[in-house]
Order: sequence, then structure tokens, then C-alpha cells
Amino acid sequence: MFHFESDYLEGCCPQILEALQATNLEQTLGYGEDPHCTEAARRIRYVFDCPDADIHFLVGGTQTNVTVISALLRPHQGVLCAESAHINVHETGAVEHSGHKALALPSPAGKISAAQVRAALQAHHSDFSREHMAQPGMVYISFPTELGTIYTRQELEELHQVCQDWEIPLFIDGARLGYGLEASGCDVLPKDLPRLCDVFYIGGTKQGALFGEAVVFSDTRLSEDFRYFIKQNGGMLAKGRLLGIQFETLMNEGLYFKLARHADRMADRVRAAFQRKRIPFLVENTTNQVFPIVPNDLLPRLEENFGFERWQIVDEGHTAVRFCTSWATPESAVDELGGFIEFNL
Amino acid sequence: MFHFESDYLEGCCPQILEALQATNLEQTLGYGEDPHCTEAARRIRYVFDCPDADIHFLVGGTQTNVTVISALLRPHQGVLCAESAHINVHETGAVEHSGHKALALPSPAGKISAAQVRAALQAHHSDFSREHMAQPGMVYISFPTELGTIYTRQELEELHQVCQDWEIPLFIDGARLGYGLEASGCDVLPKDLPRLCDVFYIGGTKQGALFGEAVVFSDTRLSEDFRYFIKQNGGMLAKGRLLGIQFETLMNEGLYFKLARHADRMADRVRAAFQRKRIPFLVENTTNQVFPIVPNDLLPRLEENFGFERWQIVDEGHTAVRFCTSWATPESAVDELGGFIEFNL
Amino acid sequence: MFHFESDYLEGCCPQILEALQATNLEQTLGYGEDPHCTEAARRIRYVFDCPDADIHFLVGGTQTNVTVISALLRPHQGVLCAESAHINVHETGAVEHSGHKALALPSPAGKISAAQVRAALQAHHSDFSREHMAQPGMVYISFPTELGTIYTRQELEELHQVCQDWEIPLFIDGARLGYGLEASGCDVLPKDLPRLCDVFYIGGTKQGALFGEAVVFSDTRLSEDFRYFIKQNGGMLAKGRLLGIQFETLMNEGLYFKLARHADRMADRVRAAFQRKRIPFLVENTTNQVFPIVPNDLLPRLEENFGFERWQIVDEGHTAVRFCTSWATPESAVDELGGFIEFNL
Amino acid sequence: MFHFESDYLEGCCPQILEALQATNLEQTLGYGEDPHCTEAARRIRYVFDCPDADIHFLVGGTQTNVTVISALLRPHQGVLCAESAHINVHETGAVEHSGHKALALPSPAGKISAAQVRAALQAHHSDFSREHMAQPGMVYISFPTELGTIYTRQELEELHQVCQDWEIPLFIDGARLGYGLEASGCDVLPKDLPRLCDVFYIGGTKQGALFGEAVVFSDTRLSEDFRYFIKQNGGMLAKGRLLGIQFETLMNEGLYFKLARHADRMADRVRAAFQRKRIPFLVENTTNQVFPIVPNDLLPRLEENFGFERWQIVDEGHTAVRFCTSWATPESAVDELGGFIEFNL
Repeated sequence: MFHFESDYLEGCCPQILEALQATNLEQTLGYGEDPHCTEAARRIRYVFDCPDADIHFLVGGTQTNVTVISALLRPHQGVLCAESAHINVHETGAVEHSGHKALALPSPAGKISAAQVRAALQAHHSDFSREHMAQPGMVYISFPTELGTIYTRQELEELHQVCQDWEIPLFIDGARLGYGLEASGCDVLPKDLPRLCDVFYIGGTKQGALFGEAVVFSDTRLSEDFRYFIKQNGGMLAKGRLLGIQFETLMNEGLYFKLARHADRMADRVRAAFQRKRIPFLVENTTNQVFPIVPNDLLPRLEENFGFERWQIVDEGHTAVRFCTSWATPESAVDELGGFIEFNL
Repeated sequence: MFHFESDYLEGCCPQILEALQATNLEQTLGYGEDPHCTEAARRIRYVFDCPDADIHFLVGGTQTNVTVISALLRPHQGVLCAESAHINVHETGAVEHSGHKALALPSPAGKISAAQVRAALQAHHSDFSREHMAQPGMVYISFPTELGTIYTRQELEELHQVCQDWEIPLFIDGARLGYGLEASGCDVLPKDLPRLCDVFYIGGTKQGALFGEAVVFSDTRLSEDFRYFIKQNGGMLAKGRLLGIQFETLMNEGLYFKLARHADRMADRVRAAFQRKRIPFLVENTTNQVFPIVPNDLLPRLEENFGFERWQIVDEGHTAVRFCTSWATPESAVDELGGFIEFNL
Repeated sequence: MFHFESDYLEGCCPQILEALQATNLEQTLGYGEDPHCTEAARRIRYVFDCPDADIHFLVGGTQTNVTVISALLRPHQGVLCAESAHINVHETGAVEHSGHKALALPSPAGKISAAQVRAALQAHHSDFSREHMAQPGMVYISFPTELGTIYTRQELEELHQVCQDWEIPLFIDGARLGYGLEASGCDVLPKDLPRLCDVFYIGGTKQGALFGEAVVFSDTRLSEDFRYFIKQNGGMLAKGRLLGIQFETLMNEGLYFKLARHADRMADRVRAAFQRKRIPFLVENTTNQVFPIVPNDLLPRLEENFGFERWQIVDEGHTAVRFCTSWATPESAVDELGGFIEFNL
Repeated sequence: MFHFESDYLEGCCPQILEALQATNLEQTLGYGEDPHCTEAARRIRYVFDCPDADIHFLVGGTQTNVTVISALLRPHQGVLCAESAHINVHETGAVEHSGHKALALPSPAGKISAAQVRAALQAHHSDFSREHMAQPGMVYISFPTELGTIYTRQELEELHQVCQDWEIPLFIDGARLGYGLEASGCDVLPKDLPRLCDVFYIGGTKQGALFGEAVVFSDTRLSEDFRYFIKQNGGMLAKGRLLGIQFETLMNEGLYFKLARHADRMADRVRAAFQRKRIPFLVENTTNQVFPIVPNDLLPRLEENFGFERWQIVDEGHTAVRFCTSWATPESAVDELGGFIEFNL
């Protein structure tokens, strides 16, 4: 039975395993100060067209979010984010554990708008009791969002503009960045990202690496002493080269984007299969996550044949479910799922 | 011009000033280990009928909330509270600064219900991703609430029952406790409180003291090492006797309740004056805060004659405002306000 | 029996009680935004000759230390201090609770030197593993120290110079500031302080107030958003005017210094009494704390007649004890103690 | 040129690379809830003879230390440890960042004794100001220590006894556990560890794995909700199976111990080579780290031929250096080093 529960069910793309094998007995300094990290950073600067960016490698997403946010905020500040944001919902309060309030804004379809952010900043500023409230000190969004939706370039520009107007940084969680950039209809290019925000990260864990997230500070004033923060937050891998080797590989000849493109195309086909049966979706999106709303009586049979997640109860008779594709999803599995939908839904 | 902006505009009731004067040159040990603190605790145990309670004195409300919550939760836990709760809105993220997420529930009229709490606990428990979410570890309510509303005894019993079923503590913020207990229609008695929750506090700052909050642990397992927490959170007053002297005085011959009763009766009269003019209220309540919704064109004249707070814009033409009474509000000021309303609204 | 255990055994100087009485029914805004706080700040700026300083009032010492340190450091930074520093020993780990390591330096006689600080900064800077260590981000000293010793102007200048060379702030805990400034042999003047450090505070609690510490930021870049920090750390007194009224009084006609001078002169006489009997001291000092080393067999009789603290076991037969004087110590008590020493030691 | 700077200069033992290869396309649940983690835990329970232990896998040492300490302490508590402890020196204040004071004890040779711990606990308990001090809430030691020394079984038993007497947990950092257990003269067996402490971890990163530390709670009351803590501290690896696969491999047929034994034997030979030339050592030890004290004029030539760390300046003419061996150190490199020492020192 093939599993579509998430995009981190398998190990890693074969190229990475090969690279690990090939470099295994090299002796290198630890903690990210090795030639592979240097080379990976060089390639990222090239691919994302940010020759002056400061680049750091961490192990996982929650760790990266907390470490960046911890470096960007002063203690009395909170982080504006979507109500559905990963940091607000699925990180066991890690941001609060580090001392900061998540200032959540309503987020239909997982997104927040420049208008919302501006209103929140204005409201705080004009409140006579503002010193009794956590001060909004940065904006966090994810691209794609938790619901697999993406921001348009225009939307990102507007968000960034608000942040610049109010002199606070914009941070983009790119745990699934490639799936967003390769989504049909996406008008954001890799080279746009560094100028559309102050810091973002390129997710490896969910996109073909064993693990690893590459943080890109386009505003290098924000990364002062960032290595101290990585260490303090438990993210400084002793064998840091493992991160370098993986991103070196992923950034080689567009591999990162190829893997993402494959996943997105597989998701498009899953989406189309449901559409043909007029199954509605919880949210319209074009990335590697598909959220069909399925009649409950079909769930057991679907679960007998495929792995996927029950996401949300929609009404008494229907449940939204999630199918994820990844770099590792074979066409045959998607064909099989398509066939099943065709004949059973 | 008389001011109704808040219930902490003046110094303190004269009895406290006298007691400070009378004891001024006594030499006592510091940090709350003096005879006045002992006597104040004894009187509280008597008045609230909790002979075994553990009692501590702190300086202010935010400090008390953070210190108690910090003592009750483990790091991965959050605190269930009303969206409008003081800890969620008006403490500059102090609870998050101490590491914990405020798990806010919708709170029409400032209150949350046992059903809401039960649902939240059940939802967390049955979520497969619960380890990725802050665990609800306690419930915080205030009595009266931020909107001056009060819980019935039945409601408190139900809330406490849910907490006991789920083995988490219930903490009642009583910054304005007396105004609640003396409110018309309140069916909660002082002696009910210790058995209706695990820890609560008796507010002094807003009820006639210069400052001070008395924390009452009816579940004394929760107060282990609490003095360490007070010190760590900056709440251990060197001259702790100042707190003892004040609560000794307030708990003498029912003074605390008399002062509160006066404020509530003054508020009733303010409320009645608005009602007579068919002015609606933002919320129905019977404590010392009154929230009439006033036509905007009357605001300037009202503000020329009385001090009060603009609370919330209701619609284009109307604003909810807040009038607070206190132990110090003279009848004459209420009469004057009543007269003004009678002839101008 | 008269007690010399500490300098916070009594209430407050009579002038403060009178001022509280006189202002009791004034209606003022809360949270330190009242005319008394404004006037108190004005007087402090005048007395300490720092017309541009930013001044804030907090309730107690631990609270003040944590709040200032929290505002000055980034998360990866620690605070250089004496091993015997109050923040390192007697604040229940409050600084660590707020996330920062106390970087303690050996401190004979309670003091640290510019050379020590420079060496620590240099050592950190030149360590290849520095990113694995808490970065020294500020220096904390107290004046007088925990052992009642004081820094010379020269020593303070040198400490400040190191801090400026390394671009980190110098913070002086002045919980007993007056006792230091009035000590015989002290060559530091009130007007020196603002230029000898970046932020300091003027202790009220131990010097004649009921409570209260006045923080003076001579480097006003450091106090940005400081009121948020006060609130977040539970130090924003609702009736903030209580702090204003007290410091207004203390800063009137040199009262603060007169009270301190009295205490220091009383301590000088206690010291002289021990010296006449060739009793050695744990530390040489000239402020309001006296640390004679007493033969153990004399302790019981001394304790029968006077209150004081056993401070430290020196050897099998001797114990260092502490006698504190204060604004409230009557000459008669000191005479009595002097007589006792004369005839019994 | 061969490098002896640390024991994490290479990738991993070939068996782990093979296992990663073999399992790469398996689809498994994330976050450590996969069959490989289950099997790895089963093997650890068998090898360390602790059938009821609760076992968790984390990525790195600092992360593991902070997560365990965070789970074991209440906010007012600190952790007793050696002055030279990793948590006290080389984790960028991570333990303090999580809110706790490191209570450092003098540690000649990296070790602390039961007598020291007992004295510290007794001193805290009998101090009248104890509520003003961080309460010792646990003991942290490492085995081997930072200086490569090891505790005897007797010493561990005594430390554990103190902890049990005072009802606080003993936590052993085993980042280099295998090197300790296989050291000549070590009388501690794997099966002893679970009964000699309450929680310990088995280091993978420095002992042949790519990364990973296996935490073993022999006292399972301490591990309640530990997965929440792992997530909150950023240590919950999405592809948790990577940890399972690695420890499954290391715990298979004694591989973990064989790798450690090899390293220790290589270190013994390095040690002997220095001893033959009567070179003294900074510390006597038998694990994989060797600390010879080398005349400064020999350093340049040594550095031309071998990689190692300058550890500590001993006197004007001598420097202590560190040579580390590992699972990956070839005999030939040790022979070459031995020859060099023979003919050049």
C-alpha cells in the first residue's frame, strides 16, 4: 500500500546518499565550518541571486523557526503570524518557550494579508495601553502555507512594504519552498525571495534531504552573532558538513527544483482525479498537498488502499483529508490512486 | 472634575494609612516573615473559611499571575483562558515571557464555560499530533472578568469539575474579587472560593490598598516552594510587612467587603442613570465597572465634566465607554454624574 | 532589644508617610504617568546632574536587576559580575530565569576590576570556540557591594573605559547607593555616576522609602521601550505615583543623602567600638554594614542583647557577623551597643 | 595529514551508511514512531539490561542536555555540575536560556564527588536565605568527563546515593559513553548504568553515527510527556527513523562497543608514545582523548605533521594539547604519530 500521509515518509534522494558515501572518510572541521557548507552556501547565493546573503544550515523546521525568531525579537516583542501558522499551532509552544507571544491573525486559506498586518501594527501603535501589550516585532509567513497555498509576488511585495514602513523584518518559512516555487500559477522566482523578505529558509527535510534547512539572511544586519543562536538553540550539528553535503547536492544542476516539480505534477494529477469526480476541496491550491472533502462512507475503503491523513471534519457526512506527494512519489502510485478514485468515488 | 477612569486613581483607604503610621518604627524581619503577614494570613483563612490554605502576599496583578502560572505549569504546558483575559491581552506577554502559551478561548462577556474547557481538553487529548501542541495544563479565569461580569456558583462548580476530571488546576484571578462578591445577584460567598478552585487571589491594589494581592492556595500541593517563585519573579518585597499590614487591615471587621460594597452601590447608581435614559450597555453586569454605549456627539461634553475611558468603538456613531467606581468614589460625584446624564443624554 | 540585622527592618522616614497622607485622595493616572513621577524624575536629573537621562521607577531590587539586564542583553549574552554579586547569589536565579548566564568573576571584597573585565572580554573574543560560550554582553557591579565596600572614582572610570572599548554597557546596582556616596573616603559624587556608567539605580527600599528603586539611563539608547520591559517583568505598579511621591520626597533638600549620612556615621561608631577592642573585620569598609569577626563564645551574649546576622564561619573559634545601620538607627542604640562591646568583648 | 582534532571529523561507520541505503525507500511514520526506533529501543534495553526503561532519540548533545534538564527541573531549580561541565562552559548558556542556573562545583580532572554534592545540598538546605537562591534540583555529570576521565562504579554509586537521599535525579551525559565503558581500568558495565542514575544518554555523534543521542530513562516517572519536550526544544526529527536506523545498527552485535574499543586502544598507543618520551599529561586518563603537555618549541613541527587541538597554556614554555582518536582512526596514522614522537620529541 502506498502512503501519501506526508512528504517525509522516505529517506532521501539517491544523489544525497551517494554524496554521503563519497565524502564519508573526509576529515573536516565541525559545526558548519567545512568546505561543503561553504560550497553549499555559494550555490544558494548563486541560485537565489543574493551574492551578499549570509547563509546558515540548521537541522529542522521548528528549530529554525525558534532560532531565527529568537535572534530577531527583543523580549517584549511578539511575532505576527497566521492563526494556522506552524509556529502558532504545531511547535508545542516553542516560540512562547523562547519568550515570545505569537500574535495570530485570522488566516483563511492559511494566508495573511498586508492589510491585516498594517492594521495590527497601527492598532498597537495607537493603543494608549500599548506598553501593556506584546509589541509586534516581526512578521512570519510560510511559503507555501500549512494549507499548501502560495502568495503571489504582488502579495509578498505588499507584505514586505508594510514591514519596511514599520521597520520590522519579514521572515518566510520555506519548509516546502520548492513545492511553492514549482507550483503551477506561481509567479515568484527563486531570485525574488531575497528581495521580498529579510530572511527565509529553504526546506530540505520535506524536499528530498534526510534533514536540513538553509537559512538565508538577505538583511545581514539581522544575522549578527547568529551562530551563537544556533548553538544556544541546540541546532549546531557537530558534523555540520552533513548539511553542507546535502544542500551542495540539492543546489547542483537544479536538483532541488526538479524534485519539487515532480511532486507538484504528481499532486496535480491527484487533484485532477478528484476534480473529475466533482469532489470539492477544503482549499484551492497547486502545491504538493491536496485536500479533498470526502464523504465519510468512502473513507474506510480509501484507507484500505492508500495511506493519507484525516485532516478536518467538515460536516456530519464529510471529512477533509490530505494527500501529500513528494520527490519520492512514483507515477505508478498516482496512477493507482487515480484509478481507484475513478472507479470508487 | 471627578475621575472614573479606573479603580486605582487614589492612594488607599484611611485605615491602611493609619496602620502604616502606627507600625512604622516596629522592627520586623523582611520578606513576608513578620507577625503582620502571619496575622493577615490568619484572618484570610478565617474570612474565606479555609483553615488549611497556604497564603502568600505579592505586590501586583501581573506579577501574581506570572508567578502562580509559572509554579503550576511544566514547560510544555499552556494556560487555557478567555480571549479577553488580562494575561492574554494586557500583560505585555509576561506569561509567554515565562515560557507558556496562553491558549485563548472565545469569551463573549469575558467568560469561558466548562463546556469550552472540556472541549479544548478533549480535542487536545484526542489529537494525534498533540505532542506537537502546547498541552493545556491549567485554567485561568478572573472573577469578576475584564468586563466586570461574574460567574455564578454553578458555573464555577462546573469549571472546577472539568478541571478535576482532567486533573489540572483552576486559578482564579481576583484582582477585583470584592467587587464581584458584593455585586447584586452574586451567589458566590467568600467561603465558596477555596473549594471552587485550587488557587485564587484577593486583590488589594484595586480595592482600597496601596498595592498588594493575597494568593490563597487551597490545594497546598501546588504551593510547594512558592516563596522561591515569588523571589525569582521579583515579587518578594523586602519590607513584606507592608503587605501584611494592609491585608490585616482590610480583613478586619469586614472592611474589604464594605469598601467593595460601596463601590458596587455607586456603580449601580451610575448604571441606573444611564438605563433611565435608555442608553444600552456593551455588557450586562453588576460590579464596579459600567460600560454604556454613548452617541459620539455626546462624548466631548461628557469628557468636559467627568473622567472616564473610551473603551471600544461600537459603530460609526457610538462608542462604548467605561466608568469605574471604587472605595473612594464619593456619593456626591455619583449624584453629579447622575444629574448630568439626566439632563444631557 | 534593638535590631541591626538589616537596613530594611522599619517602615519609612516620616517625611514619606506625611507625603503619602497629604496626597492620598489626589486622583492620578496609573503606571507612573502622574505628576509625582514626573517631578521625582526632574529632581533626580537635577541632583545627579544628568539633564537628559531617562528615568523609571520600579518596586524592588531583584525586579530592577532582571528588568534592566533583560533590556540590555540579547539572548546569547551573559552578564559579567562579581562572584558575590546579588544577581549571582541571592536572586533565586532570576537572571538565568530570564535566559542569561551570570558570568561570575572572583571578587575579593565584593569588587571586580577593569583588568578582570578586560581579560574576560579578551579571552572570549580570542577563543576559537567562542560561539559555543555565552557572550559577555554587559558588566554589572554594585555600589556599594554586597560587602559594603565601594569603588573609587578611578576604579569606576577604568571599568567604564573597558566597557566603552568593548562597546558593552556598564550597569551599577545602587540598592544602597546613598550609603556609598556618603561613606567616609568616598570620592565619587552623585553627579559622577551618570557619566561613569550607562545605567544605574538609586535604591529607595534600603534607604528610607517603603520600597522603590529609581533607574537612571544616562545612555538613553538603552532605554528604548523600557516601559514594556517593566510591565512584562511585573514591575509596573498600578499606583505608580507611590514611587513618584517617595522619590520626590527623598530628593527634596538632600533628604536621601542626609538619611544615608546618618546611617554611615552610626556604622562608623559601631566599627570604632569593635576596633577599640582590636576585633578584626571580615572586610575593611566605611558604609552602613559592619562585619566584625567575633569569638564564638561571645556570640550568645551578644545575641541576647542585640539583633544582628551571623554572616560566615571564619574558623573553628570565630564567626563573622553583620551589623547594619540605617536612617532609622537611633544614636541611643549605637551607644548601647558601643557600651556593651566596651565591657563585654 | 591525519587529523586528531576531535572524534567527529568523519561521516559514520560503514554499517550505518549501508543501513541507510537499504532502508531508504521504506515509507514510515515520522517523529520517532517507526519500527526502527522501536527496534533500536528494544536493543538498548537488552544491551543495557533495563527492560522497563523509556528511550528517546535526539539529534545532538546540547539539545539533549537542555531537553532533559528542562524536563527534570522546576523553574526555581538549578543543576549541580562540574565547573568544567559541557553545560556550564560550551553550550552558549543553553541551560540558562531555558531558565536554569548551572550550579558549578570545582572539578579537578573534570569530576565532582558525592561529598561535594552532599555539601552543596546541605548548605542550601541549611541556609536561612535559601529561598533567595536557586535550589539544587538535580545533578549532571558526564561519563567520560570533558577531560576524558571516568568515574569508578563506587563513585557513581555514592553520587547516586546522595541524589536518592535528597530525592533529586542524577543525569549522566554519555556523549562519549562507549569510550568510557571500554577504557582500560573502567569497572562500570553497560548494565550498571541504568541502576546508577535516573537518566543517561548513549552518544552516537562522537562514536560512529552521523548524529544522534539515545536518552534512557531508567526512572520512567521522569519521562512523562518527554516527547512534548523534545518537540518544544526543536529535537524531534521529522524523519526520526534516521535515529532509529543508526542505533539499531550500533546496538547490533556489539558494534557500538567495538568501535569505542578501537578508539580507546588507539589512544592508549598515543599515550604510550608520549610516556616513553617522559612527556607529562594535563590529566591521567584512559579514554579516547590524550592531553600531553608539549614544549612550545615543538608545537610548530608537530602541527606541520598532524592535526590536533591546542587545549590550554600550562606555563610560559608549555602547552597542553589534545589528540582525539575515534572509530575512524587508522592504525597507520597512530603508527605515524608514534614514530614522529619517538624521533622528534
